[in-house]
Order: sequence, then structure tokens, then C-alpha cells
Amino acid sequence: MNDQSISLRRMGSFFVGGEQKAFSGHEPRDYILAKDGVPVQINLSGTCHVGQMYVQYCEPDADNNRVPMLLWHGGSMTGACWESTPDGRPGWQPWFLRNGWTTMTSDAVERGRSGWAPLDPGFTEAPFLRTLDDILYQFRIAPKGNPDLLHGGAARLFEGSQFPLEAMGQFLMQFVPRWSGTDALVLSAYIALLKKVGPAVVVAHSQGGAFAFHAAQAHPELVKALVVIEPSQGGLLEDAAQLASVPVIAVYGDYYCYDKRSQSVREKVEQFLAAIEQSGGDVDIIDLPKLGITGNSHLLMMEKNSSEIAALIQQRLVEKGFA
Amino acid sequence: MNDQSISLRRMGSFFVGGEQKAFSGHEPRDYILAKDGVPVQINLSGTCHVGQMYVQYCEPDADNNRVPMLLWHGGSMTGACWESTPDGRPGWQPWFLRNGWTTMTSDAVERGRSGWAPLDPGFTEAPFLRTLDDILYQFRIAPKGNPDLLHGGAARLFEGSQFPLEAMGQFLMQFVPRWSGTDALVLSAYIALLKKVGPAVVVAHSQGGAFAFHAAQAHPELVKALVVIEPSQGGLLEDAAQLASVPVIAVYGDYYCYDKRSQSVREKVEQFLAAIEQSGGDVDIIDLPKLGITGNSHLLMMEKNSSEIAALIQQRLVEKGFA
Repeated sequence: MNDQSISLRRMGSFFVGGEQKAFSGHEPRDYILAKDGVPVQINLSGTCHVGQMYVQYCEPDADNNRVPMLLWHGGSMTGACWESTPDGRPGWQPWFLRNGWTTMTSDAVERGRSGWAPLDPGFTEAPFLRTLDDILYQFRIAPKGNPDLLHGGAARLFEGSQFPLEAMGQFLMQFVPRWSGTDALVLSAYIALLKKVGPAVVVAHSQGGAFAFHAAQAHPELVKALVVIEPSQGGLLEDAAQLASVPVIAVYGDYYCYDKRSQSVREKVEQFLAAIEQSGGDVDIIDLPKLGITGNSHLLMMEKNSSEIAALIQQRLVEKGFA
Repeated sequence: MNDQSISLRRMGSFFVGGEQKAFSGHEPRDYILAKDGVPVQINLSGTCHVGQMYVQYCEPDADNNRVPMLLWHGGSMTGACWESTPDGRPGWQPWFLRNGWTTMTSDAVERGRSGWAPLDPGFTEAPFLRTLDDILYQFRIAPKGNPDLLHGGAARLFEGSQFPLEAMGQFLMQFVPRWSGTDALVLSAYIALLKKVGPAVVVAHSQGGAFAFHAAQAHPELVKALVVIEPSQGGLLEDAAQLASVPVIAVYGDYYCYDKRSQSVREKVEQFLAAIEQSGGDVDIIDLPKLGITGNSHLLMMEKNSSEIAALIQQRLVEKGFA
């Protein structure tokens, strides 16, 4: 499957969301932007765009009348997480594209190619960059306290891990700074995206899952199905019935027994999923270990069996009539 | 040409350059990353990667034995500038891909999906975001002092401008913050990219052109040809002979008479190009207005005649035996 050619009708990118803002109170000053460079006068006062989101699309050649598939990444990451696995195999974006979907990969506001506005009040708090040490255990790749992991052996990952240990360096290079107060901007841009290209199937990882639930609650008519990969949060519990018409597929990996926070997060999400079901919705929880698929961390799209998991999702989408 | 399908053998992305660094002196603390979210303990001390660069590749199906084409963006922008024009036509990346090139589009260190490290000394200075007001005249799209341009008419652009005025909003959304002290990190990552995938043809815009000259001087054996689009600087003048073996195509737009800084930048670059020629190098300056192609700003890859300019570059690359 992965070695076959991809025939595209169109590929490109665009931006959605946010607004133009005028910044004032600064005077022009001369900058030297490079050694021996010609000085350039820059005025920080003027018009910038704040809160936009970058979206890259690939349309397969075959016209199959499917809605597009939107790929929404998790916290501290960018759309790059869907393109290739850290060890260089095709990621879910080319996988789903090869399987007939128009893919639209976005970078949430502030991250990646979406950019951010240093002078805007939304960004004056200091951003932070996650460390490998925290990522490894919070994303259930390895036990806590693994200072030598980068230089160490597979024994230090969880027993049976499917994470591509040899590519840990490439994995760490994917992380970008994030702010913790930009959720409203990000959600607003995702809703703008749905309004522009929806209805769509949304595949969302971790923090992206939380945005996907909220965006779908705001505009259930624009979301044909939600595929949430280890979502970091549910939507608004009291309004769960808004998703009665939106089929939800939730996918979970392994090693929950080793991390209490992951357990708490999942319990809260599953309460939300139960509320959707109680209001008549279609909720399909894929608990991979229960299907005999073990060894997966929080990063299902990166692991050695990533294509197997994509195929499982595709199969459910086919069964539900979306592919 | 632009409406034909693109058949790809492979597409994906990877990261190059930079190094892992251990940050210390911080204690773990609990963050609430979203309203009603489960607290997460984050320690800013730990291992991060600093100085990496994101690279997205697309390989056409046809095996034509060409080296890859690397697309390096200019200051305050990302690789998105090559993908689509602001008004939604195919950009130079799909254009050259359709014309048989493996394209590799990168985001310079710190920008876009490459990310940056808030705690690293290289990034402690405040970054800045360019305003539309400055961009318009510094990039020779419109005369200085155009506060109403976003809401105004074509008359306010330079007479005969080919810039897609109706898409000014999409254009402004492409801009991301930049630092002015990160050149060494950026250059180092570009050299790492050449070492990984070279030899290659490098197509570089504005600030990317300065990096391209310097990287090619460091490793002329890894650069088959340099296509510099309105470069912001030359390389090391005293070492111009290092490029005697690297054919250079330099492309310039219109309206130089209206901006003294653009004139100064171009004069300095042309001194460098003359030094390459004097040492026996092959320098081909494409002055578009001299060919009767008028109305172009600093952003040749975005304008209404962008594909015409790409075809002109392709023709020169064919004549020189690279395509």
C-alpha cells in the first residue's frame, strides 16, 4: 500500500481565521538583520494579522465524492506529526490520501506556519517548550526518570513498546513552543476552517481532540464524523446532545496502568462520550489492547504499527458509510 | 500545465540540523492547559532540541535522474510561500514538481514548523512581526504610506503591478515572527540539509538567497546550481571564487527606482555576482523588466505572472543541463 504512487489533482495551502489588528505606540527604527547587511527601517506599529491558521491540502485525482479529512495535531506539535513517522515511514496524511481522502493538515494558531503576534495581548505570557524527559512518560512511551534514554537501549521503553526508539531524535525535533492561554483563538480558527471546507471528517490527536469536540458542538452540521486519537479533553458535558448526530470514533493505546494523569484524562473523556451515547449518539471506542494490539503510546500515528491503526480507522469509516 | 495531475512516488517530511541541549534550574510545576483540564506537571528543565529545520519533500513518480530542488524562503516567511499564491493559484513548489523536480520545502530555523527554544540564549531577544505597512513598500508592492490599502483599490499599488491585490489578506497571514540574531543557526541547518540530500539545485528568495550563497560557498560540491530570487545579500566577497563552479541565476523584478534600500541591496549583491564572474563563474542575471516583463515586486513567486517567471527559470535550468 505505502509503496504505490499517489496521484494528485491539486495540492497547496491557505490560511483561515483570526483578524487584522493595528498595533500602535512604536516608532520606526533601523535594524541590521544580518552581518554587513543594509540597515532596514522597521516600525512595529502597523497592521498585522492575529490568530490565523495554516492549512495544507492534497486532493487525490480520483473523484470519489467524499468529504475532506481534516488532520488536527496535539499540543506542542504541528501538522508535521501526520506526514512521516519519526523513523521515516509514511505518516497518516499520505496513508489516508492514498486511500482516497482529500487531506487537509493544519497547524493550530501560534504553532508552525500559522505564526503568532509578539505584541498581541494573547501572546505576552512566556511560551514553553516540552522536554523529552516529560514527554516520554506523559505520552506513555517510557517509565518516568529516563535521563539516558536518548543514548540507551530499548529495555528502557515500556516492555513491548512499538515506539520507534531509534528515531527518538527526529521525534524530539517535532516539538514547538506553546502558550497556555490561546484556546479561544485556536478554536475560533478551527471553526473558521470547518465553515470554509466542511462538512468534513475530523481526525484529531490529543489537544486537537478537545478542539474537535468543541468545534463539532458549535457546528455539528459541518462534521460528518469525529475520529479522536487519545483526546486530551471532551467537549461541554452539559451540551453532549449536540453531538447526537455526529458519529465519534475514539482510539486508545496501551500502558494506561502506568500513568495516573492519563487515566484521569481518559475517565473524563469517557464520561463525555457516555453522555453523547445517552443522548442517542453513535460512539465507537477502539481500545487497541482489547483488540490484541498492544505496545502503543499516546502517539498512535508514529508507531511501528501506525499503518495498521490507520487501516482500522479506515475500516470503521467504511462501515459507517463515510469512505 | 497547472491543471494536470501530479503523480508522486513519495511525500513526507523530516528534520535536520541543530543539537540536543539540556536546560536546568527549573522545578516542575503544575499547569492547567485548558479550562477544566486535568493539571499536568511540566518541568522546563530537561532535554530539548535547538536549531532544527523542518523539510517537506515531494518526489515525482518519473525517475529523471535530476538532483532535488530545495526551496528556501525569505525573512519573516515560511515554506508556505512556495505552495500557493495568495490568490490560490499553484505556487512554485507544485509548478516545479509538475515539471519533474523532487521538491524540498524547508522552514528556516525558528520559523514555521522548525520551532524554537524559548530558554535558549539564541532566542532571548524579543522577536518581531513585520507589518503590512512596512512590507508593502519594502517589498516594492506599493508606494510608502498606504494606510487604507487593505480596503482600497488597485490604484494605490504601483502602476502596472502584477501583485494579486484582492488576496492581500491571505498574503499578510503568511508572516511569522523572526529574530535578528539567529543567522548562524539557520545557516548551519541549511548546510546540514545540503549534506543530507545534496547535491541539489537551490532556489532561494530574499534572505534565503543570502543563506544560499553562504551555504554554497561552504560546500560548492553540494550545489549544482543556485537560483536566487531578489537575494537580500551576497556571500563572502573575498571568497567569491568558491562559487566559480556553481552556476548562479539571479532574478530581479520591477520598481527598483522607487526604493533606495532595494537599490543598495541589489548593488551590493551585484558586486558579489561580478566577483564570481571575474573568478570564472557562470552568472546569469535575469532582469525581468529588461525582458519586457514588468510589474513585479520583491515576491516573484506570488504574482499574477508567477508561472511565467517559473517557466523562465526552468528554461535556463534546461539550457544549463540541469533539467
